[in-house]
Amino acid sequence: MNPESRAWNEKLIGVEGGIARLDTPALVLDLDAFEYNLRAMVAIARAHGVALRPHAKTHKSVAVAKAQLEAGAIVGFCCAKLGEAEALARGGIDRILLTSPVFFASKLERLVALHARLRELSVVVDDPVQVEALAAAFSAAGRRLRVLVDVDVGSHRFGVPTVADALALARRIAAEPALELAGIQGYAGTVQHIPDYRERAAAAAPAAARLAEIRDALRAEHLPCPIVTGAGTGTHEIDAKSGVFTDLQVGSYAFMDVEYLDCALTDDGTARFRPALEVWTRVVSRHHPGFVTTDAGIKCFATDGPPPRVAAGAPEGARYRMFGDQFGRLELPPGAPNPPLGAIVRCIVPHCDPTINLWDHLLCRRGETLEAIWAIEGRGAVA
Amino acid sequence: MNPESRAWNEKLIGVEGGIARLDTPALVLDLDAFEYNLRAMVAIARAHGVALRPHAKTHKSVAVAKAQLEAGAIVGFCCAKLGEAEALARGGIDRILLTSPVFFASKLERLVALHARLRELSVVVDDPVQVEALAAAFSAAGRRLRVLVDVDVGSHRFGVPTVADALALARRIAAEPALELAGIQGYAGTVQHIPDYRERAAAAAPAAARLAEIRDALRAEHLPCPIVTGAGTGTHEIDAKSGVFTDLQVGSYAFMDVEYLDCALTDDGTARFRPALEVWTRVVSRHHPGFVTTDAGIKCFATDGPPPRVAAGAPEGARYRMFGDQFGRLELPPGAPNPPLGAIVRCIVPHCDPTINLWDHLLCRRGETLEAIWAIEGRGAVA
Repeated sequence: MNPESRAWNEKLIGVEGGIARLDTPALVLDLDAFEYNLRAMVAIARAHGVALRPHAKTHKSVAVAKAQLEAGAIVGFCCAKLGEAEALARGGIDRILLTSPVFFASKLERLVALHARLRELSVVVDDPVQVEALAAAFSAAGRRLRVLVDVDVGSHRFGVPTVADALALARRIAAEPALELAGIQGYAGTVQHIPDYRERAAAAAPAAARLAEIRDALRAEHLPCPIVTGAGTGTHEIDAKSGVFTDLQVGSYAFMDVEYLDCALTDDGTARFRPALEVWTRVVSRHHPGFVTTDAGIKCFATDGPPPRVAAGAPEGARYRMFGDQFGRLELPPGAPNPPLGAIVRCIVPHCDPTINLWDHLLCRRGETLEAIWAIEGRGAVA
Repeated sequence: MNPESRAWNEKLIGVEGGIARLDTPALVLDLDAFEYNLRAMVAIARAHGVALRPHAKTHKSVAVAKAQLEAGAIVGFCCAKLGEAEALARGGIDRILLTSPVFFASKLERLVALHARLRELSVVVDDPVQVEALAAAFSAAGRRLRVLVDVDVGSHRFGVPTVADALALARRIAAEPALELAGIQGYAGTVQHIPDYRERAAAAAPAAARLAEIRDALRAEHLPCPIVTGAGTGTHEIDAKSGVFTDLQVGSYAFMDVEYLDCALTDDGTARFRPALEVWTRVVSRHHPGFVTTDAGIKCFATDGPPPRVAAGAPEGARYRMFGDQFGRLELPPGAPNPPLGAIVRCIVPHCDPTINLWDHLLCRRGETLEAIWAIEGRGAVA
């Protein structure tokens, strides 16, 4: 590293030494902030008597799941796709809920195989076709699968639309000897990122009420409903306080991202979680006043949400934009000098889940020291 | 697969049998269309006396590179990042041009190691700092590196901005015993996707003229300029005809995508290349009139450009949208029935490069038969 860029880094990125020499671009996890976030969520769960079932779609990493387990209050993990669950299972995670339906030929074989190696596997359904397929596969395998009814609480992506549909589907599950009715799920995905806490709480209330109504209707028919699962980082406290949910499917809280940093996650507006996940990138070209080219672009950051946010390495007011697939454009505020070639810029990730899905490893730092490299085993496991 | 979805697939996706039973979502390459595209580009190159130096940032795959080699007219491959080049080198690709500067400490060690295993390695520079770093590293290693001057032809992302800067940098390279001046590069990235052929040709002309001017100025100083490299799929024919370029850095032509399908790539508007790359996804939930939920979302498709385009599996007029990280929303035209659970929908990829970077494998089909599975070895190699 040339002396000019070293001086810049020491002044602006807030760290020096080992970690500042890393090859870029890199996905860097601040372990202190990450562990702080895990503890903060456990505290909320314990205060309101709910458990955590963290959603591994966010991190897809065995090491992250094990850190969550160690932090406490865990009743299992969620996965959005079967491949994610297989990756976690290979790493020793043994209680998994698949939060979207899995019911097709080759997937059924994989599901039975996964069931055989886990302590507890549950899946959701929202259609009788799925119940039929699962019952046939697990009956043939001589195994019993835990099944939850997925309830549409507003996003219209998955879930039975009415209370009557939920009851009918639950009865159908309960009638299958190879299936065990384990409860209900409702995820209010469209509510999570409402910026204002009270508006979000108002929008989340009908979802919890719908789930409570279905739970009570199931119990009135003497159908079991031990689990009412849902929630996300946006509604974690709201749903914890509702008294309806038995566990929270929170994911992003562990890392945070630009999207959630723009949401008030506590009633009084104090920050509950810290931004823990950054992409570190270096300046690789500088020929124009007002901006430089960096080495992290569309293949390093999710592009479905806001742009990355500059956390360090550039003067206040600098903005980061994509500059093609492999490069970024750091736009400096008026009058600010261009950082030198090789200077590091630290960017808070824009939307954490699809950003992490681009990377094979998390570089975990403790202050200036690279403490661990964690694999993202479920990266790309979309099927 | 249930009979209803099998009937739907046979009617609408255009294939049945083996390939229609594949687990979804999947990235599927139509080998007939792919090979047609390779032949079409070779024909253009040969007709105009230029070579091809395909850009592997698009595919990051040894098998794809080898198919391009076999099709002919190849003088080497381009890589945007060192990690991509390392992945191709491990697979036996032995002539590589790094099309963006590589000049930092740990990267220099890797670059020297890569140089030792390749028949030919070249890199571009746009700053004296880079020349100095490369000269020091290769001098210390007792090796000689081929270096090209990168010229800014309009995108302002990389490249020396003026003819005088280009000459000064070339002189500096030529003065270093450990470096060999191999020519110049200019990539008109902002021009590639202008929809109209003639407008694109007019926009590309100044870039070629700038490169010709620099080439002539180098020769007037008796500095070598054997290579003038650049171009993309959008300007492939325009740049081939220009008489300036010695080789074309084309990438997307092998697969095509929604972005390039919307550009006229020939003067008379006929299609030169065929869409060869699709994501196959299945319907996983259907509770609402007018749309269904499918199993491919933001983690399966690049989101920096247009949405995926439905190629088959849904009635004319159906549109595909992201429905979160892991799911899609297939919107049916008014009055069309919802496809059944399990029905396959085939989507042309939106922007091919960052879409491929999400996947570990290409499933290669010949008609209805899965003929090969090709690894995407350079996936995620962003550093």
